Amino acid sequence: MRKRKSELKVKLIPLGGLGEIGKNMTLLECGEDIIVIDCGLAFPDDEMPGIDVVIPDMTYLKENRDKLKGFLITHGHEDHIGALPYALRDFDVPVYGTDLTVALIEHKLQEMHVSNRTLTVVKPGDKVSLGCFEAEFIKTSHSIPGAVALAITTPLGVILHTGDFKIDLTPLDGQPIDINRLAYYGSKGVLCLLSDSTNVERSGNTQSEKEIGKTFEHYFDIASGRVIVASFASNVYRLQQVSDVAIAHDRVICFAGRSMEQIVAYSRNLGYLNIPDDRIVKVDDVKKYRDEKVCIITTGSQGEPMSGLYRMANASHKVNIGAGDTVIISASAIPGNEKGVSKVIDGLFEKGAYVVYDRNADVHVSGHACREELKLMLHITKPKYFIPVHGETRHLMTHARLGLNMGVPEENVFVLDIGDVVSFSKKGAARAGEVPSGSVMVDGSTNIQDAVIQDRKQLSGEGLVVAVITIDKHTGKQIAPVEMISRGFVYMKEADELMQGAAQALSPEIARFAKEGKENYSNIKTAVKSRLRSFFKSNTKRLPMIIPIVIEGEQND
Amino acid sequence: MRKRKSELKVKLIPLGGLGEIGKNMTLLECGEDIIVIDCGLAFPDDEMPGIDVVIPDMTYLKENRDKLKGFLITHGHEDHIGALPYALRDFDVPVYGTDLTVALIEHKLQEMHVSNRTLTVVKPGDKVSLGCFEAEFIKTSHSIPGAVALAITTPLGVILHTGDFKIDLTPLDGQPIDINRLAYYGSKGVLCLLSDSTNVERSGNTQSEKEIGKTFEHYFDIASGRVIVASFASNVYRLQQVSDVAIAHDRVICFAGRSMEQIVAYSRNLGYLNIPDDRIVKVDDVKKYRDEKVCIITTGSQGEPMSGLYRMANASHKVNIGAGDTVIISASAIPGNEKGVSKVIDGLFEKGAYVVYDRNADVHVSGHACREELKLMLHITKPKYFIPVHGETRHLMTHARLGLNMGVPEENVFVLDIGDVVSFSKKGAARAGEVPSGSVMVDGSTNIQDAVIQDRKQLSGEGLVVAVITIDKHTGKQIAPVEMISRGFVYMKEADELMQGAAQALSPEIARFAKEGKENYSNIKTAVKSRLRSFFKSNTKRLPMIIPIVIEGEQND
Repeated sequence: MRKRKSELKVKLIPLGGLGEIGKNMTLLECGEDIIVIDCGLAFPDDEMPGIDVVIPDMTYLKENRDKLKGFLITHGHEDHIGALPYALRDFDVPVYGTDLTVALIEHKLQEMHVSNRTLTVVKPGDKVSLGCFEAEFIKTSHSIPGAVALAITTPLGVILHTGDFKIDLTPLDGQPIDINRLAYYGSKGVLCLLSDSTNVERSGNTQSEKEIGKTFEHYFDIASGRVIVASFASNVYRLQQVSDVAIAHDRVICFAGRSMEQIVAYSRNLGYLNIPDDRIVKVDDVKKYRDEKVCIITTGSQGEPMSGLYRMANASHKVNIGAGDTVIISASAIPGNEKGVSKVIDGLFEKGAYVVYDRNADVHVSGHACREELKLMLHITKPKYFIPVHGETRHLMTHARLGLNMGVPEENVFVLDIGDVVSFSKKGAARAGEVPSGSVMVDGSTNIQDAVIQDRKQLSGEGLVVAVITIDKHTGKQIAPVEMISRGFVYMKEADELMQGAAQALSPEIARFAKEGKENYSNIKTAVKSRLRSFFKSNTKRLPMIIPIVIEGEQND
Repeated sequence: MRKRKSELKVKLIPLGGLGEIGKNMTLLECGEDIIVIDCGLAFPDDEMPGIDVVIPDMTYLKENRDKLKGFLITHGHEDHIGALPYALRDFDVPVYGTDLTVALIEHKLQEMHVSNRTLTVVKPGDKVSLGCFEAEFIKTSHSIPGAVALAITTPLGVILHTGDFKIDLTPLDGQPIDINRLAYYGSKGVLCLLSDSTNVERSGNTQSEKEIGKTFEHYFDIASGRVIVASFASNVYRLQQVSDVAIAHDRVICFAGRSMEQIVAYSRNLGYLNIPDDRIVKVDDVKKYRDEKVCIITTGSQGEPMSGLYRMANASHKVNIGAGDTVIISASAIPGNEKGVSKVIDGLFEKGAYVVYDRNADVHVSGHACREELKLMLHITKPKYFIPVHGETRHLMTHARLGLNMGVPEENVFVLDIGDVVSFSKKGAARAGEVPSGSVMVDGSTNIQDAVIQDRKQLSGEGLVVAVITIDKHTGKQIAPVEMISRGFVYMKEADELMQGAAQALSPEIARFAKEGKENYSNIKTAVKSRLRSFFKSNTKRLPMIIPIVIEGEQND
C-alpha cells in the first residue's frame, strides 16, 4: 500500500546541545533517511570527577543505522566535531564540512586511529543531497574560519540551522555572513529555524573582531619586553590580528603548544592565516632574539593545567614568564573555568609579569550573536516554527520569548530537551515522544556509568574506611584482630585511637554472627557497615564510604 | 636596661585575606601587646573535597597568647567573624564590634557552644584602648549594617584599616560613610593604610544601593503572581528595599529560611530593619493569601543546595515555585559559584517561573569600592605606607599600582602574603621575615590535613581498587584466591573480566615472595601496588588508588 501524502513526516531530534552548552548534535529523519547536524563533545563539570570527555548517547542512531546517510558539520569546534571519532567507529557514512572543518576532523580521526572514512570538503553555496534531504552551506561569522549555516530542504520545507554565529559585517577576512542568502530562504519560506542561543542574555550586538585590534596596538606600543598572548588555538582571526600587530612592531612570532602549531599549519595551508615564513620562529630559537623583538602566541586562556600559558607561568616550559613580560589573555573564562583562569592570572602577577585580561582591557569579543543579532536572524528568515538551540534552559527560554516578541506564534515555538522529537507534517508540527538520549562519559578509553560517578563523589567528600574481618570458616568466630585502613578520611598517623575504637565497636557484631551460625554470614557486611557508620558519625560527624571485607580462615588451636 | 626609643617596633602580620578572598585576619603587635583585626573563615574550593570551612592557621597567636589583648571586628560577614568561635575556644579575650556584628557573633558562639566570652558593643566614634593601641571605629558603607573602618593609634602613628567598604553617599539608612573622619586622620597623618581590594579591577564607582530600587518597582509592577526574592540574608538594606516595595504593592512578606529569619529578628530588634508586624507572615500562613498579595524573601542567591531558593526550585520546600511566580535573584554569583547559580536559574525556568537575575536586569550592586572610590580613599587618607588587603594576588598588585599612581612611593607599598611580617619603626617600615600561616581545613568537627585532601583528590578522579591477598603465615604461599574490590573505578558488574585478569597478573608476584621467604613480606604490598598499577594503566589507561591488604592465615592440608 502506498503511503498517503498526508502521512509524510519529517522528525527533528536533538541528541545534544539543548539544556546544556556542549556536545551539539541534531538528527533529521524522513522516511528511510536520517542526516545528522554536528557531532560534538562536552567537557566534564565538577559533578563528573575523573571524566575526560562527554559525548551524546547515540543509541537511537545505532538502532536506525541503516537510515543514516551522513553528517553535516557547521564548523570545527570541539563541541561540534569532538564526538565524530566515536560516531565514525560505528557508522561508516560520509561527513561534509568546509575545508578547515574537515582538516580538523581528519586530524582527530588520525589521533584516535579511525581510518578510511569519507570526508568531503564543501564551500559556502555548495549543495549536498542525502536521501530526501538537500543541504546548502551558507557562510556565517564565528570565532573560527569556515563556519556555515545549513539550509536543509526537506520534503516539507526548509529547515534552517544557524550553527554558531554572530553578525560581523567587518570581519578580518573581508567575507561577512551571507545575510542575503539567509534572506533569500526567508523570502521563499522557512519551515523551521534553529538558532544559536548562547548570548541571548546579552543586549545589543557582539563587537566585530576588528574592534579589539586597537587594544593589541596599545599594549604592543607600551611593552618593553616580550609579549605573550594566550588565545583559543582555533580563533584563527585572533591569531592573524595579533600576528599583524607583532609584525608591525618588528617582532618575530612563536606559536607555542601542540594544538596551536597544528592549527597554524592547517590555517596557513588553507590560506586562512597569512604570515611570512621569516617572521615565524620555533620556541627553541626565541632566545636568539632580544625580548622586545619577541611575540609568543600560545594556548591556556582557560587556565588548563597542561596548556602553554599554565606551564609558562609555572616554570615548566621553555618560555618561563617573569618580570618585564606582558601577558595578554585574549579570551573570556568559559563558565566553570573562572577560578582556574584567576589562578593563572594571580600566578603571572606573582612572577612580576604585566597581565592584561578581559576584566581590565578590551582583549576579547565573543563568537556568538547578542540579542539584536538574534532578532535580525529571526526577522530575515521569518520562520513558521522556531526552535532555540545551543543553550542551557535559561538561554532557550529567553530566546523563545524573543521569538514570541518577533511574531512567531506561541504554539510554533518549541523549547526542547535532548531526546525530544518534533514531528513536522502537512498539518503542522507537534511533539512526538522521545528517544533515548543522555551523556556518555568517557574516561581514558572506558565509558563510565553513573554508579561509578556517585562512588567517586562520596569518596571525594568523605574518603573511605576498609575493615578486614577474619573469621573461622567453620565456627564464624573472629580469629584475628579487625584490620582498619582508611584513605582520605582522617590522617592515619593521628587516628590510631579512632580506628582502634572502631575495631572494638565491631566485636559484639562479629560475636553475634558467630553465635547465629554460618547461614547469616551474608548479612555480616551490612551489619559491619551500619555499625561503623554510626560509630564514625558520632565520633567525627562524618560518613566515609565503608568497605567491609570478610576473610574466612581456619582457627589453629 | 631600658629599651631605647629607636627600638620601638610595631609589627603588622596578616594571617588571612591576602592572596585569597576569605578568612580575613590581621595582627598588630607592639611590645607585649597584640590586637587582632577580624577573624573570618573561608569556604572550601574544588581543591578541598568534603571540607566544610577553612580557618586561618593561628599558631603564631597560640605561641604569643599572653600578649593577646582582644579582637576588633569590622563587620558581621562570615569572612570576618566566622573563625571567632574557633579562636575563642582557645583565647578568652574581649571582642569589640558594633551592635549587629556582636549579635551575629553571639549567635555563632551559641551555635558552637562557646560560652562566657566578653563581647562589647561599640558605636562609630567610640574608642577602645588595648595595651599600647587605641582603636577608633569609623562608620563606612557596605552590604551589611554596622560596618566600620578602624583607625588604630599605635606608638608609631595611625594604622588605618578600611574593612570592607564602598562609598555610598545616598545609603538606605541615611548614614553615609564618614569621609570627614577619615579625612581628619588623613590630615593629621596616617602611617599606613590597609584598604579593601575586592573590586579594584572595576573602573568607576559602585552604584548606590538605592539605584536598584527602581528595578524592584518595575518587576513588582508587572508581576501577576507571587514574587520570590533571593538575597544574602545579611544584606539588610536589600531586605528593607524589597520589603518597602512589597508593602507599597500591598503584599505581605514572608522571610523563609533559618538564617534569614534569624538576621531579620536581630535587625528588627536593633532598628536596622523597619517593617510593621502586620505585614510579616509565617511560611505556613502564605497560602492564606492570594498569589498577587505575597512576597517571599529567602536565601540561596548562590545556588547553595540547602538554601531556601534551591529547595523551592526543587519541590522540597513548603513554597513550591511554579508557573506564574516571579523570581528575582538579587545578587551576583561569587567566583566559583557561577555554575551552581546557573543550574538553579535553569531549574526555575523549567518550572515555568519568570526569572530576573543579574544578567538580564539591574538587581544587584556590590558592597565593595571600585577604582574611583579606592582612589578617593587613598587621596583623603594620604598614607605614608600602603598595604592592599582583601584580595587575590591580581587584586593586590593592581591596587598597589593604583597606590603608586596616587603618589605613594614604590618602596612604601607592600604587597604581602599571609604570614609576612612588616615591621614599622622610627626609621621606616620593612619586611621582617614571616610567621607560621596557612589554611586549617575543618570537616565536621575534625581538622583535616593536606595528605587526606590529596587522597580524596585521587579517589575522586580515579576511584580505588582493594586487593586482598591471603598467604600462609609460615610459608608465604597464596592460600586463597586474590579478592579484588573496586569503587569509583569501573562498574563492577561489567568488570569481572578485568578484575580476574588483575588477580591473575598478581599470581607470579605472590609466588615470587613465597619463594623469597618471610623476611621480604614487607615489600609485597609495594610489589602488588606496582604490578596492579601497570596492569590497570595498560588495560584502562587509568590509575586508581590501590590498597593492598595482606592477610596471613594457615594452610589446612
